[in-house]
Amino acid sequence: MDLWKTPERVVLVTSNDTDGVPHVITVGWKMRTSFKPPMLAIAINNNRYIHRCISDTGEFVLAVPGADRAETTLGCGLPREGDEDRFEKFSLKTEKAGLIKSPLLIDCVANFECHVVNQIETGDHTVFVGDVLASWVNEKPGKNLIIAGESEGYELLAENEPYKIGVIK
Amino acid sequence: MDLWKTPERVVLVTSNDTDGVPHVITVGWKMRTSFKPPMLAIAINNNRYIHRCISDTGEFVLAVPGADRAETTLGCGLPREGDEDRFEKFSLKTEKAGLIKSPLLIDCVANFECHVVNQIETGDHTVFVGDVLASWVNEKPGKNLIIAGESEGYELLAENEPYKIGVIK
Repeated sequence: MDLWKTPERVVLVTSNDTDGVPHVITVGWKMRTSFKPPMLAIAINNNRYIHRCISDTGEFVLAVPGADRAETTLGCGLPREGDEDRFEKFSLKTEKAGLIKSPLLIDCVANFECHVVNQIETGDHTVFVGDVLASWVNEKPGKNLIIAGESEGYELLAENEPYKIGVIK
Repeated sequence: MDLWKTPERVVLVTSNDTDGVPHVITVGWKMRTSFKPPMLAIAINNNRYIHRCISDTGEFVLAVPGADRAETTLGCGLPREGDEDRFEKFSLKTEKAGLIKSPLLIDCVANFECHVVNQIETGDHTVFVGDVLASWVNEKPGKNLIIAGESEGYELLAENEPYKIGVIK
């Protein structure tokens, strides 16, 4: 199954817990699921705290990190160390979303506000299917961040074996 | 929504109709959804014939094309012309799968036999979630085929605007 994993786009997902505290995680398993209306799906590990946030609130923001957010994207994919605040640790600036409570990540190149319309448990992850209620795109997006493969065509920006985050050269 | 679409891995999916006739299509919207057990999901346009095949038979093969299958991957993503037989048109060799009736594509670098355990209609596509019952991997897989973006790091192998299929250089 590892064979088709690189290169793979990688994104950040935010969602609040029921106390209104925001959480963020790196997500590799995501896909669009509809042009009209715009919809997408993410698969979230059942053991991650943000799984409960999305289940409880029924919403999330999918944010697309640019090349300048490689360390953030790598770090938010690793297990959280104790009570660390990832927003503080990675200087992740947030902004109020337009239609949902999950925060936008304003340094990312795009943000999609999603309302969960369906969720299915699939093995060790849950698939959350979301309606994209609103989209925010930076004017100058730059290169898309990916999980890099083994060939030479990548510019690696952050590494923590076995994870390599970078862009296409 | 287009912003995070490249580079994106692209795969082929086969499934039989109820008469046992195999069909094949190119799929860009797919993701893994579980490590244990291995599971994955694909999103298929509700208007494509193979949508009915997968719905009726409850199974499909996800095949990963290599660089030598760029034209096939491009062609199987375009609308079918009349009654054309894509297996013949693209000299796609098939082999009987081990556990399901959908055929393997033996020239691809990997094949995953999938049994549909759940399906959800999401806008203009349907998400089929599959248990991976069996995996077949070639010994020398080569580079993974992708939908290429705009930067210079790609080797383009097949094009039909706006689609560009290639590999990372």
